[in-house]
Amino acid sequence: MEIAVSELARRFGLQHHGEDAVIHGVSTLEQAGPGQLSFLASSKHLESAKSCRAGCLLVDEALAGEFPCSLASSNVYLDLARIMSLFEIPRGDFQGVSEMAFIHPEARLGEDVTVYPFAYVAARAGLEDGATVYPGCYVGEDCLVGRNSTLQPGAVLMPGTELGQGVILQPGAVVGGDGFGYAHTENGHVKIPQLGVVRVGDDVEIGANAAIDRASLDATTIGSGTKIDNLVQIAHNVRMGSHCLIVSQTGVAGSTKVGSNVVMGGQVGVADNIAIGSNVKLGAMAGVTNNVPDGFEGAGAPHLEKGRFQRTMAVFRKLPELSRRVRQLEKQVQDLARGHNPGDKND
Amino acid sequence: MEIAVSELARRFGLQHHGEDAVIHGVSTLEQAGPGQLSFLASSKHLESAKSCRAGCLLVDEALAGEFPCSLASSNVYLDLARIMSLFEIPRGDFQGVSEMAFIHPEARLGEDVTVYPFAYVAARAGLEDGATVYPGCYVGEDCLVGRNSTLQPGAVLMPGTELGQGVILQPGAVVGGDGFGYAHTENGHVKIPQLGVVRVGDDVEIGANAAIDRASLDATTIGSGTKIDNLVQIAHNVRMGSHCLIVSQTGVAGSTKVGSNVVMGGQVGVADNIAIGSNVKLGAMAGVTNNVPDGFEGAGAPHLEKGRFQRTMAVFRKLPELSRRVRQLEKQVQDLARGHNPGDKND
Amino acid sequence: MEIAVSELARRFGLQHHGEDAVIHGVSTLEQAGPGQLSFLASSKHLESAKSCRAGCLLVDEALAGEFPCSLASSNVYLDLARIMSLFEIPRGDFQGVSEMAFIHPEARLGEDVTVYPFAYVAARAGLEDGATVYPGCYVGEDCLVGRNSTLQPGAVLMPGTELGQGVILQPGAVVGGDGFGYAHTENGHVKIPQLGVVRVGDDVEIGANAAIDRASLDATTIGSGTKIDNLVQIAHNVRMGSHCLIVSQTGVAGSTKVGSNVVMGGQVGVADNIAIGSNVKLGAMAGVTNNVPDGFEGAGAPHLEKGRFQRTMAVFRKLPELSRRVRQLEKQVQDLARGHNPGDKND
Repeated sequence: MEIAVSELARRFGLQHHGEDAVIHGVSTLEQAGPGQLSFLASSKHLESAKSCRAGCLLVDEALAGEFPCSLASSNVYLDLARIMSLFEIPRGDFQGVSEMAFIHPEARLGEDVTVYPFAYVAARAGLEDGATVYPGCYVGEDCLVGRNSTLQPGAVLMPGTELGQGVILQPGAVVGGDGFGYAHTENGHVKIPQLGVVRVGDDVEIGANAAIDRASLDATTIGSGTKIDNLVQIAHNVRMGSHCLIVSQTGVAGSTKVGSNVVMGGQVGVADNIAIGSNVKLGAMAGVTNNVPDGFEGAGAPHLEKGRFQRTMAVFRKLPELSRRVRQLEKQVQDLARGHNPGDKND
Repeated sequence: MEIAVSELARRFGLQHHGEDAVIHGVSTLEQAGPGQLSFLASSKHLESAKSCRAGCLLVDEALAGEFPCSLASSNVYLDLARIMSLFEIPRGDFQGVSEMAFIHPEARLGEDVTVYPFAYVAARAGLEDGATVYPGCYVGEDCLVGRNSTLQPGAVLMPGTELGQGVILQPGAVVGGDGFGYAHTENGHVKIPQLGVVRVGDDVEIGANAAIDRASLDATTIGSGTKIDNLVQIAHNVRMGSHCLIVSQTGVAGSTKVGSNVVMGGQVGVADNIAIGSNVKLGAMAGVTNNVPDGFEGAGAPHLEKGRFQRTMAVFRKLPELSRRVRQLEKQVQDLARGHNPGDKND
Repeated sequence: MEIAVSELARRFGLQHHGEDAVIHGVSTLEQAGPGQLSFLASSKHLESAKSCRAGCLLVDEALAGEFPCSLASSNVYLDLARIMSLFEIPRGDFQGVSEMAFIHPEARLGEDVTVYPFAYVAARAGLEDGATVYPGCYVGEDCLVGRNSTLQPGAVLMPGTELGQGVILQPGAVVGGDGFGYAHTENGHVKIPQLGVVRVGDDVEIGANAAIDRASLDATTIGSGTKIDNLVQIAHNVRMGSHCLIVSQTGVAGSTKVGSNVVMGGQVGVADNIAIGSNVKLGAMAGVTNNVPDGFEGAGAPHLEKGRFQRTMAVFRKLPELSRRVRQLEKQVQDLARGHNPGDKND
């Protein structure tokens, strides 16, 4: 794949500054060579960009004109995504439905479905048009895999799970496993049957080895456009809104409601049975144990409002000094109480 | 499945208050309709329960009689589990031992065993009566899968692992992987062979994508009735007692002993080579680095006794104010020492 | 397998003290019997060692001569690893390339390669001499599995991943999944194609259900000799050096550089786009948000230098008392300011 910068400008509606060049790939500022395009989303890396050897730079509009050849964008990452998609290596060494797969006679397969060897599609499961199921995947009974959705190798849908359109399950993701629910008795924990399902909206991506549990009753739901990173845990009965970004190793406990456009940094923990508003941002490793309102920004465990967390940690880091100052004060006050002026000592 | 409330009362020994009704399912207080049963374990949600449209409520004995139709229970969750099990959708679109599975000629299979396509049962592995192995599972050499135990899709037992009866491995759970043990030399880390195994008791459940490592010598053990949630890590040589509840994303490091009836909240971390007593409760995200005695309740990382943790966090949240107060005190004491009365300034 | 202690001494260049004995296994100090060897790396467990029933003790040179039969070593764990390797149970109930595997006609297989049933080896993938691919594994297009490397059951290599020699992927490990990269628009998050790969050096071990994402451009790299534990997350574009030890459930965020010989305890979190030097040690649960230099030892989240962390936590644990002391000081200073001597009250 080779394409002229002028052609990229035309195709994606970008403004072309400077010379033309032919591009055959995309690379980082450090690595890019003359035949490659690189990018600069802010002035932060301006120095690196100036010494970059890339044939063309995709840059924020404010930075256009600073380089011999650039494309100006109002959303660098979006246009980068578009340009990068031109250079994707086409994959798919297998097409059609393999005879080495197991397709239950009662399964329903749409048009242009791909089922790799060693995939299992159970009774009454449906694969809509354009769905792809890689090796080692399990699509349980009564599951629905929406149009153009993909189950990468080893992904598992337990019975009754429903995926919308354009969903991507990365390798090893498990959707619809039983929730962690037990009745406690003198003789031990008795499993509460998990009768509900998981419903996943459109354009959701679920990372490698993530786990999303089925509801005990009703449904665990993930709204459209939400992106879930690797090794995330979503417990039973969670209701998560749309367009959330849930970074790796985060866990959301049972029956918690999460609004839309919520961002959770890595390794966040959210307690059970609480409500997280929309447009909430939780810093990495935050631990949230209470409801938080729309637009809240939190950090720390247990969480604080972000500004307070930063001020609190600034004191926290100096606790040894604070402790020493209090000890000093105690001494001084004792001296004052005795009628000695603590200042005298230093005279 | 349809059943009269009076019949549920009879079958499970519950006291029936009010009218009779026919039930065809179970749902939440918010979602339940006239043909469904819902439940109320405490007075916390009494208001929701009063406006609930459920045909019948399963309630704690103290709350019976408050509703047009109720079943009174001394253990609501236990009776809920029993009633819910009536409404489980029967699964199992495959029976018997698939010709698309690999069964080593030296494997031993009991009666009524189910082995799905694409399962691998290795040499000298034993599947006891009623065991079920789903697609994509691997049962390594010399493993034992106890009576009525189930390996859900993609679960892996590495060689020599022993599971008791009625054990459930959720999808992607790995039991018996090598422990993280290396000898350190000038030329790098040399792998210490992990010669031990994992032994899992009866009625244990292990969550999706959890990992339990084999011992370096001897055995990593999980006691009967212990329930382990998704994405939990149990390191080599851990000895965990019975009836523990280990919530998602918790990690227990090598050679640590854990008593029985221990509850660990989500994302707990327990250090290596320590001893956790029985009946211990660790709050979510607790980090335990020292031995803790029977009955201990802890929180925080590094952990504190729960009450102290709460008092400590109450001060922690106000550290900016505490710091300001100390600064103010310093000023006042300095003024006093100079012979000024700090109060004067405000006169 | 049976071997005389004198023969072990000869074979591994160890000094033999006391009697000879025949050994048929290795066990812990508590469990070892007369026919087994046990070990003692430091004087910490000297008491247990003295009452140990083992036929022979492998001990640090400083401790030799204290026991009826011992082997003295300058690196106990290294010699233990060597001796234990004699007692490994030979595994491998399958040899050769199974007809129940899927090998793409364009895949390239070296000599003495083992491919189990239900493994998928894609187009242009290469398995070098002695490579082993267990059931349920997926080796994507253009992957390279180096000489004598092993993919344990259910491990996944997404397209273009390269493994060096002697690499071990434990069950369910996923290498080369898409990084978590999106362009943010008013209409939601648009996936940025992840065009890069993962390159893994020689003698790397990657734990069960760990996830290492491909780069967005270029390569995520893991240096030779680095050992990664279960359930670890390595995000896209990370460049990790050699001989690191990354303990379970740790996460390293995108584009971060990690030096060599770095040790991260369990559940550590490292932010994106930072630089961690070489020979760095991070305590369990540390959260690192800034660059740290070579040789740094850190703990806590956000991290502090280890000594400061310990002093800070010592004060933290006593925050309720510190708060009380400040309140007391405020009262005393108020009294002093009013002209009362706080001491008077107690007279």
